[in-house]
Amino acid sequence: MTVIAACQLGPTLGDLAGNRERVAAAVGEAVGHGAQLVVLPELASSGYAFEDRAEAWASGEEVDGSTVGAWQQLAADHGVVLVGGFCERAGESLFNSAAVVDPDGVRAVYRKAHLWDRERLIFDAGNDAPPIVETSVGRVSTMICYDLEFPEWVRIPALAGAQLLAAPVNWPASPAPEGERPGEVVRVQANASVNRMPIVACDRVAVERGVAWVGGTVLADADGWVVAGGWASEDEAVVTAELDPDQADDKKIGGLSDIHADRRPELYPTTGWVHPLT
Amino acid sequence: MTVIAACQLGPTLGDLAGNRERVAAAVGEAVGHGAQLVVLPELASSGYAFEDRAEAWASGEEVDGSTVGAWQQLAADHGVVLVGGFCERAGESLFNSAAVVDPDGVRAVYRKAHLWDRERLIFDAGNDAPPIVETSVGRVSTMICYDLEFPEWVRIPALAGAQLLAAPVNWPASPAPEGERPGEVVRVQANASVNRMPIVACDRVAVERGVAWVGGTVLADADGWVVAGGWASEDEAVVTAELDPDQADDKKIGGLSDIHADRRPELYPTTGWVHPLT
Repeated sequence: MTVIAACQLGPTLGDLAGNRERVAAAVGEAVGHGAQLVVLPELASSGYAFEDRAEAWASGEEVDGSTVGAWQQLAADHGVVLVGGFCERAGESLFNSAAVVDPDGVRAVYRKAHLWDRERLIFDAGNDAPPIVETSVGRVSTMICYDLEFPEWVRIPALAGAQLLAAPVNWPASPAPEGERPGEVVRVQANASVNRMPIVACDRVAVERGVAWVGGTVLADADGWVVAGGWASEDEAVVTAELDPDQADDKKIGGLSDIHADRRPELYPTTGWVHPLT
Repeated sequence: MTVIAACQLGPTLGDLAGNRERVAAAVGEAVGHGAQLVVLPELASSGYAFEDRAEAWASGEEVDGSTVGAWQQLAADHGVVLVGGFCERAGESLFNSAAVVDPDGVRAVYRKAHLWDRERLIFDAGNDAPPIVETSVGRVSTMICYDLEFPEWVRIPALAGAQLLAAPVNWPASPAPEGERPGEVVRVQANASVNRMPIVACDRVAVERGVAWVGGTVLADADGWVVAGGWASEDEAVVTAELDPDQADDKKIGGLSDIHADRRPELYPTTGWVHPLT
C-alpha cells in the first residue's frame, strides 16, 4: 500500500511566489501524514481564471523555472513523488501542464490535450499521450481535468501498464442532485474501475473571478470505490489515504473475465463513426 | 419527454413459455404507466445460468421464433417500442442477443460482442456494432450488459447519433460499500454523461443456480443523473420514468465545450498501445 495525499488548495491568481509557499506548506503537512506521493491541483502555480493568453503568459514559467524547481526541492527534501499542475511556457507556446517530479528531478511533463471551454483561447493543446513514470511508488501516469472526461484517453496509460493515475484538476462547480456524488467524481470512479487502475484527482477551492469549484478531490481504488474525499467542499484540505498501485497489475474481474483482455479493439473505430440508420 | 419502463423480471431458466407470459404481464403493466419504450433484461426469454452450450442451445430460438414473435405482437398491440434480450440461434451459431421491435416488426437484432466470464464457453460473440433504430421515440440503440463496461463501445452509437441507449443486462451481484450505488450503475452514469446520451439498463432478479443479481435497473439522463432505480434490490419491478431523447442532440456542456467535438480522435489508438517507460 502507498500513502497518497492530494492537496486541495486555493491558489491566488498570478501570485507565483505565494502559491509556491502554499504548496510547500501543504506538502509538509502531507509528508507529516506519511505521504509517499503528493498530488497538487491543476495550475497550482498560477491560478486558473485568466482573462486572456497575455495574462496567462505573464504567469507562465519554463520547466526549469522557479515553481518546478521548488517542487523538485520539496521532492528531494521529503523523499516523495510530486505531481502538480503549472502554467508552462515553452518557446512561444503556452501549455496547461503537469509535472511529475521526484528526488531524481523532473521525470515527465504532460501537456493537457483536451482544453476546456475558454482554455482553447489561452493555451496551446498538448499532442502527446500521458506519460508513464517508473517511480518509488510504482508506474505513475498523469493527465489534467477535462482529459478525464474522455475515457479513450484514460485507456492509453492504463493499457500501457500505469499503476496509478494522478490527475491535477480544477473542476468548475455545477449542481448535483441531493445526496449524489459530483458527476466528475462518478466519472473518476468509472475510469478507475473499467481499467482497474487507482486514480487520484486533486481539485482546488477558493472562488476566483466568480468561478467556484467543486472541491471534490477524490482517491478511488481499482474497483472504482472512493477511499477518501469525493464530495463537494469549499475548504482547503490535505486528503490522505492508502491506495495499492499493485491492484492495477491484475485486470481480472471475476471468473474468466479480464477487463482489458476482453476488449475487442479490432471492432473499435478511432474516428467519428457513422452508419446508416436501421 | 418519453415515458420509459424497464421491467426488472426474474425469468425461470429454460421456461420459454412461462417467461413469455411474465414479459407480457410486465409490458401490460408498463403500458398502464404510459410507457412508450419498454426494456427487458438480458436473456429474458430463457434465463441465464446455463451449464453449457448444449443446454443454452435447447433454450435458443431463431429471430422468427415464438419469443420475438410474441414481443412483436405486444409492440403492435400496445403501440410501443420494445427492447429485450433473448437466446438466439442462427444456423449453427448461438448468440446472447437483443431485439428491437416496434409495431412495424423486428427492427434490429444486436449480438453481444463482449462475453462475460463463462459466456465465452456457451455463446458465439457478435462482431457487429450496436444498431441505431429510428423509432417513434427517437433513435434507439442497444447493447448488452458487459458491453457497457467498455466505454469505446458506448461511444460508437453515441457518436453515430443515438438518442437513447436501451441495454438489457444481467448484473451478477457483488458487494458495494454502504451507501454507494452499485458499480455497474456508476458506470452507466459515466457512459451517459460523457456522451450526453440517456441510458436505460434493465437488470434482472431471482437467484438462479446460486447466481444472485444486483437488481440495479437504472434510468440515467444525459447528464448521468439517475432519474429512477439505480440501487440494488431483490424484487421484480417495472421501473418507470421520463427521459428526454432530444437531450442527446446537444453535446455542449458549458461555454465553448462540446463533449464530442472536443474529442481528439487523431490521438487515440485503437489497439493495445505501449510506449517506453519514462
